[in-house]
This record gives sequence, C-alpha cells and structure tokens, in this order.
Amino acid sequence: AEGGSSAQVAAQPAASGSTYETLLVTTEDKITTIKLNRPAKKNAITSGMYDEIVAALAQAAKDDSVITVITGAGDYYCSGNDLSNFTKIPEEGVEQLAKSSGELLRRYVSAYIDFPKPLVAVVNGPAVGISVTVLGLFDLVYASERATFHTPFSQLGQSAEGCSSYTFPKIMGHAKATEMLLFNKKLTAAQASELGLVTEVFPESSFQSEVWTRLKSYAKLPPKSLAYSKQLIRSTDKERLHAVNDAEVERLMERWLSDECMNAIMTFFQAKAKL
Amino acid sequence: AEGGSSAQVAAQPAASGSTYETLLVTTEDKITTIKLNRPAKKNAITSGMYDEIVAALAQAAKDDSVITVITGAGDYYCSGNDLSNFTKIPEEGVEQLAKSSGELLRRYVSAYIDFPKPLVAVVNGPAVGISVTVLGLFDLVYASERATFHTPFSQLGQSAEGCSSYTFPKIMGHAKATEMLLFNKKLTAAQASELGLVTEVFPESSFQSEVWTRLKSYAKLPPKSLAYSKQLIRSTDKERLHAVNDAEVERLMERWLSDECMNAIMTFFQAKAKL
Amino acid sequence: AEGGSSAQVAAQPAASGSTYETLLVTTEDKITTIKLNRPAKKNAITSGMYDEIVAALAQAAKDDSVITVITGAGDYYCSGNDLSNFTKIPEEGVEQLAKSSGELLRRYVSAYIDFPKPLVAVVNGPAVGISVTVLGLFDLVYASERATFHTPFSQLGQSAEGCSSYTFPKIMGHAKATEMLLFNKKLTAAQASELGLVTEVFPESSFQSEVWTRLKSYAKLPPKSLAYSKQLIRSTDKERLHAVNDAEVERLMERWLSDECMNAIMTFFQAKAKL
Repeated sequence: AEGGSSAQVAAQPAASGSTYETLLVTTEDKITTIKLNRPAKKNAITSGMYDEIVAALAQAAKDDSVITVITGAGDYYCSGNDLSNFTKIPEEGVEQLAKSSGELLRRYVSAYIDFPKPLVAVVNGPAVGISVTVLGLFDLVYASERATFHTPFSQLGQSAEGCSSYTFPKIMGHAKATEMLLFNKKLTAAQASELGLVTEVFPESSFQSEVWTRLKSYAKLPPKSLAYSKQLIRSTDKERLHAVNDAEVERLMERWLSDECMNAIMTFFQAKAKL
Repeated sequence: AEGGSSAQVAAQPAASGSTYETLLVTTEDKITTIKLNRPAKKNAITSGMYDEIVAALAQAAKDDSVITVITGAGDYYCSGNDLSNFTKIPEEGVEQLAKSSGELLRRYVSAYIDFPKPLVAVVNGPAVGISVTVLGLFDLVYASERATFHTPFSQLGQSAEGCSSYTFPKIMGHAKATEMLLFNKKLTAAQASELGLVTEVFPESSFQSEVWTRLKSYAKLPPKSLAYSKQLIRSTDKERLHAVNDAEVERLMERWLSDECMNAIMTFFQAKAKL
Repeated sequence: AEGGSSAQVAAQPAASGSTYETLLVTTEDKITTIKLNRPAKKNAITSGMYDEIVAALAQAAKDDSVITVITGAGDYYCSGNDLSNFTKIPEEGVEQLAKSSGELLRRYVSAYIDFPKPLVAVVNGPAVGISVTVLGLFDLVYASERATFHTPFSQLGQSAEGCSSYTFPKIMGHAKATEMLLFNKKLTAAQASELGLVTEVFPESSFQSEVWTRLKSYAKLPPKSLAYSKQLIRSTDKERLHAVNDAEVERLMERWLSDECMNAIMTFFQAKAKL
C-alpha cells in the first residue's frame, strides 16, 4: 500500500497546466492522466464536465504522451450521468433539453471512438452508467477488486449508450450483455474480467503501484507502433461505432421525453428528497 | 423444490386461450410463456409444430406481455428437429420436400430474428439441434444444471442453422464454436455458460423458483425501455442475420438431397428399427 | 506417453511424396499434416518457407483428405518470422525488400483465409508472432500445456498481422486483445483457452495420443458436410478478412521502413552478436 500510494503520487503530481474545473489533467512519464475530480459527488458527470473530458481527450491526442489514462478521484471511479442535468430545463422547454443533451452525448462518445492513442481506464472503485458503457471503447481496463460495474438504464426508463449496445454483445455475447444492459445486473470486478470487459483485476492494496508500474513500462514502447496498432485494431469498427452512437443517441432523445423516463426520474428525486 | 413447483404452476396455469396442438401458451404476470408440449417425444419439433411456434411468437409480439419465455414440458427442453419430418415425402418427390422444409426453416428462424421483445429461454433439460442453434438469437438463456447442448449436424450429413454459423463464433470464438458445429461436441450447462451461450446455470432443485422469481421482477421494468433496448442491440446485426439465415437454408436444401445426408438418416432409422 | 508416441508415429510416417525443404507433408487416415521442420531454428519461418506453406496448403485443399493439420517438429511449434529475412536486402534497396515482404505476407495470410477444409493447429510448444496471429483463422486449436502464445510486435516497432487486429478482439474482446497485440503479453496455454484462442489444452504426456485419436475420429465424418459447414461459418467474414489483411500489410510495409522498427531490429542483432 505504501509503494502504491507513492507511485500514484509520483504519476499524478498535484498540479501543472491543468485548467479544468472538474478534472485534474497531468502528464508524466509519457502518460497523460485525466482524473475525474468531483469526489464529493462520486465523480458524477455534469454537462460542463462532459465538455471538459472531450477537451482533455483532444489535448491528450495532440500532446507528446504515449498513453492516456482515465481514472477517478476518491473512492468512486464514476457514478455516471449527474441526474441534476435533467433538472436544468431551458426556456425553450424539455424538447430543447433533450436535443442539446443528445448532441452533447454524441460528441462525448465520438471523442472515445476517434481517440488515436492507447486509452486506459484505471477503475479505482464503483463505476455506473455511461462510465461503464464507454469501457468497450477503451484499449485496456484495469480494475481494483473494489470496482463494480452497473448500467441501470431500464430502471430509469432509458436505454444503452456509449456504443455498449454493440460492444457489450461483441465482448461477452448477448446472453450475458442483456442482463447488464436491459436488466440492471451489477458485475463485480472479477465477473467483469471473466466476461472480457476488464483486462485484469488487482488487489486494492497494491492496485495503484502495480498498475502504474506496468503503464510506465508500456509507455516506453515505440509510440508510433502503439498508436498505429491501436488505430488498425479499431479501424474495422469505426464507421459502425459512429452509426451505433447515432442510433443510441436518437433512441435516448425519445426516451428522455417519454412518460417512462420522466416518471422514473421524478421517483428518483422524490426518494432523494425524503432522505 | 416445493417453492419452485408452485412458482412454476403459478406462472403457467393449466389453460386459458391456448389453441395449439403442440404448445401450451399462457400469459401471466406480464410474461407470455410458450411451452413445447410433446414430452413423450422429448419435444421434438414436427413440421406443424414449427408453424405453431411461429404463430405463438407472432401472438406474443402483439400481446401486452413484457417478456416472452420458451421452455419445455417434461424432462427435455427440446430434442430438435423431428427426423420423421424427412419421411413425409410428397407426391412431387424429395426435391419438393427439401424446398418446403427450407421455406419452413427460413420462416421459423426469421421469427426469432425479428422478435421485438426480450426473449428468454428457460432450458429445463437437454437441448439438441435447432433448439440449441437459435439460442444465439435469444436475449437471456437460463439453464438447469441438467441441461446439455448438442448440435450433431455433421453426423447426419447436415450443416448448421438457426444463424449459429454466425452467432456461435461471435459468442465463443471459432476455436470453440467449430467443436460444436462441425464436430458434434456436447456441452454441459456449466460449459455453455463459460462460453457465453448461457446466461446462468441453476441447481435443478431451485431452477424453476429462482428463474421465475427473477423473470417476474424483470417484467415489472418499463416495457418500452426493455423492448427498444433489445431492438437497439439487435439492430446492427439484423440485416446480416437474415442473410446468414438465407445462406444456411440454401446449404441445408442442398445437404438434404445429398448422399451423405440420405445415408446418415437411413442409418438412423435402421438403428432405431433394431431396438 | 507410450501410446501417444506410437499414435504420433502412426499418423505421421517418415516420408512419402514430400518435396519440401522446410516442411514434412504427409497424408494418412484422411488427415494431411503439414509439419514445420526446422527444429534447430525453432521452426522460424524464412521467406522460402512461407511459400512452401502456401504451396502445401494449396495441395491439401485439393487432395482427398478431410482435415488439414499444421504442427511443429521438435520442442517449438513455431518461433515466428525468421528475422534474418530482414537482412537479405536486394540491390533495389530496403523499399523493395519491404514491398516484396508485404506481398509475401499478404499471399501467406490469404492462403489461410481461403482454405476450404477444416484446418487444425496442433500446438506442440511455444508459438510466437505470425504463428500465433493466424490462429484466429484456424477452425480448431489444440495445445499442449507446454505451449505459450506471444506476439511481441511493438517491441520490434512493428504491428499486428495475420488478421489478428480483427480476429483477436472478436474472440477475446478489446480489453484482453490489446495486452497481447500492443503490449507484448505472453499467454499460457490455459489462459489462451480461457480467452477462446485455443479449443482445448492437454497434458504434455498424453497430448499427441489424445489429439490424434480425436482427429482420426473427426476425419471419419461426412467430408462435404464438414467442408461446407466450415465455409458457411467463414463466409460472412471472408471479404472483411481480406480487407483486414490488406490494411495490416500496408501498415507493416510502412513500419518496416520506420526508424522505430529499424532501430529495434538492429538492437536485436547486436544483442544476439554479444552472446
């Protein structure tokens, strides 16, 4: 644990050039790390935070790093879409909110589809919703044994995004993917690794030290070989992934205005108000 | 087991609206259950039974149920195509039999490809042939530990159907799929689950109670979210699945008239006659 | 082990009709076996050997065997591309070497994509590089527990071939495939089987006897059913596989002339010279 902590600190110094409100972005040892930094909100993603992640990915794509990492500050990796996003209804009404949210989502997922370098998720704790679904667009997914993977879309009257309607059945087969994407099954880290969603699971005590030691050695490999190989692997699916993203966003824009979704979200906030 | 039996009975009352000869079709708790009901013949599928299943699926697609289940009466889930189908040669000859059998098969598999709601297989015992191959078109597959999965096509001079030539390699990879589809390997329930063909395996003693409890809770989720999510997941493959179905049927029509197949089926009936 | 040895001898008699320098090609019990036969060089594949394998596959496609096997002589299955291939620079220069190597590679991989009968790898020991990547184009892969699977492309400034940029993610998901194809992870036989790259692993002591007993029984099945079923399974991917092969070869021709690759190969030979 000692070594783990110091390795983490070494890889992610406190500051330098980060101009984001919701992220800590640092580059060291040829690794650019985008750390989701709203630990008090379990790193739930607000509208502004989606745009910041898109900007940070664009920056990482251009900098001289070899590998890009996304991870979370605090105990959670990411609790998914911040449901308060649904309460900021503009003057033009909920249709306009659905439309702009759809555009934002499409842009967000496209940033993952088109990312040109090896992209690694360091899943330090529970992951929910869109932080899980986009994992199929990462190249490596390392998880602490504390991590869980949960996509409770239908409970909220919604539907799958992040290209998971395509990547999850491809990774684990329909019989397993449906339990996650339709029926809200939460996976442990070990289960997610068996199904191929996660590359490898590490004990919590050595998670940070083991993962960063490995990533630092990977970042010393020939950069162009890595980037070109990643692009080669993704190229056969790229066109299809954009089409899937479009179809998922279109469905979600319909869902967000549906009675099923509105009732589910109202129930969510009523339950929260009672606490 | 007690709870299991009563849950099963509760979910599948003895009658109400079923007008099928070979099936028991019931709707309860928003679940439509299509039970293959030729237990004395291990639920082998006759020509007429194929058409009844197509009709029952069409009915389930339109009714107000949320989930559709296929299961078997008695000890078997389904022993596959009833080979007696091959002995009913019409006046026009075997070519006509191959042609009409091909059309029937194409229609049968299409009914699975196009089914618009979550489709669940409750595999209560051994499954053979086409009852196994179409499992790749289901959304969930729950199996008793007694279930086995066997597709002995090449032994009979035939070839894969039910879109398994596409879905099985997608689910488990070619190295595993070939042993089933070309070399007649029979899987246990546990093996089928490891390979992703089965969602989850249950002990025989609690199979019915655990599965139906789960399905009843799933059927309470927002119906449109479930149906649209299922359609979203399947939409990327739909066109390809119909093309695969066509190619498989065309190959089988050739196979059924081949010496390899005719000899194998003759041997089968001779062996049976000797018993 | 006794039985194993004798079974192997029986299946692969010392001679008959083989006119290859680097291969032993024999047909017995309806099985054509192509044995890589440079055991002193761990069966590394020279330029001439690529062409011999292409020729042997073309011969096996036409002979009256039912199943074709590739295996290795000695302790190794195959150590991959013989790096001495890179040192035979023609008068026209390295660009010409890259071009002719690319053409050879394209032809070599195409021979696997188009092979019309069940193709089986009997992986008797460590497998490296292109002997691993083409495994996704085989129909069955049997491995001794001694086998390992290693594709160290990026270490050499190169990139994936053998259609592995497409088949590996399809078989095991991106999160697992990337560790092999980008980050040089070596798999044990057991790991390769869990991920679906290998059909089954056998103890070294009984490997040869168990595998050849099984293959001999498979070779008695109806030949056309087997060949047509294999072709049916592969047909949906064939066009895409050729496109993937083209893209991989194009990338490799660029890589071979890159500083990253030239430096890595120079370092390799310098390290070797010091031994």
